[in-house]
Amino acid sequence: MKLENLVGERFKERPADSVIDSHALMIRGGYMKYVSSGIFTIYPVLRRVTRKIEQIIREEMDAIDGQEVLFPVVLPASLWQESGRYDSVGNELLRFSDRNNNPMLLGMTHEEAAVHLVREYGRTYTKYPFMVYQLQTKFRDEPRPRGGLLRVREFTMKDAYSFHTSQNDLDAYFNRCYHAYERIFARVGISDTIAVSSDSGMMGGSFSYEFMLPTQVGEDTLVICKNCDYRANMEAAESITVNEGTSAIQPLDRVFTPNMKTIEDVCVYLGLPIVSSCKAVVYQKNTTDEYIIVFIRGDIEVNETKLINYLQEDIHPAIITEGSGINSGFIGPYKLENAVALFDKSLDGIGNLCCGANAVDYHYTGLNIERDLGEVEYHDLAKATECGICPQCGSAALTISRGVEVGHIFQLGAKYTEAMDMTYTDDSGNLHHPLMGCYGIGVGRLAASVCEAHHDEFGPIWPISIAPWQVHLCCVRADDEIAKAFADRLYAQLVGEDIEVIYDDRLVSAGVMFSDADLLGVPVRVIVSPRNMKDDCCEISMRDQSMSKKVRLGEIVKSLKELLS
Amino acid sequence: MKLENLVGERFKERPADSVIDSHALMIRGGYMKYVSSGIFTIYPVLRRVTRKIEQIIREEMDAIDGQEVLFPVVLPASLWQESGRYDSVGNELLRFSDRNNNPMLLGMTHEEAAVHLVREYGRTYTKYPFMVYQLQTKFRDEPRPRGGLLRVREFTMKDAYSFHTSQNDLDAYFNRCYHAYERIFARVGISDTIAVSSDSGMMGGSFSYEFMLPTQVGEDTLVICKNCDYRANMEAAESITVNEGTSAIQPLDRVFTPNMKTIEDVCVYLGLPIVSSCKAVVYQKNTTDEYIIVFIRGDIEVNETKLINYLQEDIHPAIITEGSGINSGFIGPYKLENAVALFDKSLDGIGNLCCGANAVDYHYTGLNIERDLGEVEYHDLAKATECGICPQCGSAALTISRGVEVGHIFQLGAKYTEAMDMTYTDDSGNLHHPLMGCYGIGVGRLAASVCEAHHDEFGPIWPISIAPWQVHLCCVRADDEIAKAFADRLYAQLVGEDIEVIYDDRLVSAGVMFSDADLLGVPVRVIVSPRNMKDDCCEISMRDQSMSKKVRLGEIVKSLKELLS
Repeated sequence: MKLENLVGERFKERPADSVIDSHALMIRGGYMKYVSSGIFTIYPVLRRVTRKIEQIIREEMDAIDGQEVLFPVVLPASLWQESGRYDSVGNELLRFSDRNNNPMLLGMTHEEAAVHLVREYGRTYTKYPFMVYQLQTKFRDEPRPRGGLLRVREFTMKDAYSFHTSQNDLDAYFNRCYHAYERIFARVGISDTIAVSSDSGMMGGSFSYEFMLPTQVGEDTLVICKNCDYRANMEAAESITVNEGTSAIQPLDRVFTPNMKTIEDVCVYLGLPIVSSCKAVVYQKNTTDEYIIVFIRGDIEVNETKLINYLQEDIHPAIITEGSGINSGFIGPYKLENAVALFDKSLDGIGNLCCGANAVDYHYTGLNIERDLGEVEYHDLAKATECGICPQCGSAALTISRGVEVGHIFQLGAKYTEAMDMTYTDDSGNLHHPLMGCYGIGVGRLAASVCEAHHDEFGPIWPISIAPWQVHLCCVRADDEIAKAFADRLYAQLVGEDIEVIYDDRLVSAGVMFSDADLLGVPVRVIVSPRNMKDDCCEISMRDQSMSKKVRLGEIVKSLKELLS
Repeated sequence: MKLENLVGERFKERPADSVIDSHALMIRGGYMKYVSSGIFTIYPVLRRVTRKIEQIIREEMDAIDGQEVLFPVVLPASLWQESGRYDSVGNELLRFSDRNNNPMLLGMTHEEAAVHLVREYGRTYTKYPFMVYQLQTKFRDEPRPRGGLLRVREFTMKDAYSFHTSQNDLDAYFNRCYHAYERIFARVGISDTIAVSSDSGMMGGSFSYEFMLPTQVGEDTLVICKNCDYRANMEAAESITVNEGTSAIQPLDRVFTPNMKTIEDVCVYLGLPIVSSCKAVVYQKNTTDEYIIVFIRGDIEVNETKLINYLQEDIHPAIITEGSGINSGFIGPYKLENAVALFDKSLDGIGNLCCGANAVDYHYTGLNIERDLGEVEYHDLAKATECGICPQCGSAALTISRGVEVGHIFQLGAKYTEAMDMTYTDDSGNLHHPLMGCYGIGVGRLAASVCEAHHDEFGPIWPISIAPWQVHLCCVRADDEIAKAFADRLYAQLVGEDIEVIYDDRLVSAGVMFSDADLLGVPVRVIVSPRNMKDDCCEISMRDQSMSKKVRLGEIVKSLKELLS
């Protein structure tokens, strides 16, 4: 098509509200338009990209025997009441009532709908295994949309659901889907995506993998071992801390620590190593506002996901009121009142700890947990750390980096089929609940991630597999009759060869033309200009600057076909 | 794929709640599953059909220079407040609040979103005309979903929006789109679809056409002239009534009509022709419950759409209470109190009318409107009638039939661009509001309509353009080694030729096999059986029974390729 007809605006200025490059470039290039917080309309350029991504996803899902279906966006609350999630999921589940006051919701994931669809179909073991998937709009009422299409409220998602009669069969299919995901990410141009163990969150089930595109702008923190193939999301990474034994047990001693409200300050003030301190981190349960205090070694951070999973309910950082009976800044486990105390494994085995004394301006030194508190239960509530110990190979080789989640696959086990009482009869006539897997990819986020991985300061550099067009034809000086006539002919010829061409024959400067082309990120560029025409040639170049050459006019089509094949 | 792996259930019994054939067959054939009132999940068979329909629509929209975009399903209320529809549209617009208590809605149509998208892009006349379209899920909270996919609450729709700088340009594009719609309906197999003038409803604008598939199960009533090309939806059809003059004016006479509560009864009782009677039909405004009484000739029905359009607000049939001051069954225009009276054009020119006397058990005869009521204003509030007068050619040649609306195209004029203040600068620097057209097709309803048009008692008969597969391969007696081996080879061969095949090699009776094949409605069927194998042939037949023949084994692939091309 002609660029002059392309609906969408391109401009030079980086939008003020964009903090990451893909967001800024996709707004600047007329890929999408903000409608409301976390809600965008997709312009034609990006729709061409997402359609190609959708097609790649379809092909790979069909290749692993997936069958495409379409679940509703609007679901009756009753379905989610069956699974229990109507009550257990927070505000990100958008609930409302229809005109007859029936409680409904906007599907943010479709496990319940999938079980509903195949509950009768899957009554006998002979039907298994099978997988259904859809490409459909989803809505999650995210509290903090950010990063353009990276975290939105409304998005197109491919979600797939597989059903199995044994763990072995689920494992085998899960593995097939794992590899299908690898192929999808490779085909859209981000083959450096890695799979990491992850927390299953609201989906439940036994375990899950996230596919992560490593990038500094990612929201997720990755824990990767340099020594073995251990890879996990920080949320799910086991934390291992080794403490040196203590030679001489000291007595518990209450010391004056005026205005020392952080454990770092106290340690400096008292000349103690931070690894001998016991930090208190205070949360409240969302439901009851009950205080939960996590005691953890002073140099280590609390992993809130692990804490939520342990408590089985949502929490938030505490707001400590005057009447709470909690002395903020001076909290310690000895004679603590008015709160639930939890102990992280990082405290196990440390003697002579420094900790708060539950009195303003006082701390203890010489706390020895077993002696002073009796037997306590330790939990893994900590974040893994750079150079920390790998839970798999045991070497101190963990690295911490960042990534964007571009896919997530879950082994759900029988969580949903049990809750919704889906059963099948085995070959002996016995009833069982089938096992499920589920597999998601957000289409818009994937497009933005590819842009994040492949761009320069001037625009995206789309891989040819998902580029909006294959060739960007620029006619510089379209007021030159000879150049224009040649470019028109070449455009018609390329279209006739089924090559996807965006043709810029506007009467604008070469600068405008090229900066627009950079923003559209089409991999192959052909420049027709009066000057080149005189030399009987055109310029062909790659958006990624890997190649630029002059080609004789008669050989352009052949040359392009070779480039594209 | 193999039929044994196809997710979805097929069964013999007609579902109790289905009143139309396409609904019953598509439930019986495993095309969709009921989730909630007017909400269905689409099984793989139907998804294959709808994807082909979507592709045909895309091709035809692209062919008229449409550019695909994707608008959000969830829209901020503010957008619809700009156009005024947030308040003017009834309960079918689903309104809700998000987690931050922002008022939102589920997009049931996207004029506002379209204007929002191109408001900046379309600031100068050089950008015009342009058209954007999407294929997206929509939700309309219909009060009475019915007929399977014919009237649902959630559906996939292609909606397109064009923008123009002159009425001529809009007319020209509207005409292109009209023909694109004709091509779409022809390609999906319902070329007998006709375009009728229609009421624009909540969309507003100057005029619209509905594309109607003629069928007895349709919800819409069509008014078609046998003599010329006049075609209209009953809602929009002008009603023309000719009354004979009256020779001798009679006096107004109050007569006793005990228990005669319908105008037919009264006319029979008094021996008067029904065309000399004045019937009263009572409504109430939804907002205020104010009574609206339409006086109309006794043999003619009120067209409620026209009444709503005249009043510019919604109405419902009246509930006449004791205290209303209205004498139900005896209402007449003479000395009427407590209600607004409207007069249909059908009363114009009739003398000596019989009508209610606004007193229990009494009517008048000899009512002469001008003499007794003074000057009244007549409106067209009537339904057209069979053998009625055509507003276009004037002959009494109207026929009344039924149809399903499969598409609707509107000239919206500047309704939305004015309300939302979208402007462009013309070549003289003056500001104008662009004109809009909008163009909708419901994908699921189109699939159901094709099924309604093409089925027999055993199942749908899909046109090859949208059939879930091209060939249905049945291996009867799959326990016969020779037949099975041949069928397996043939299946592989056909798949290798890129022919879409559903392969049934289940160990079921030929009866089950064929009734399943009938329900799937695939156009070409190939039957491999031990008996045929002995004769060195297979049977090829068409689902529509137009052909059935034996073909030598060596010639099957060639024969099928000929059939399909």
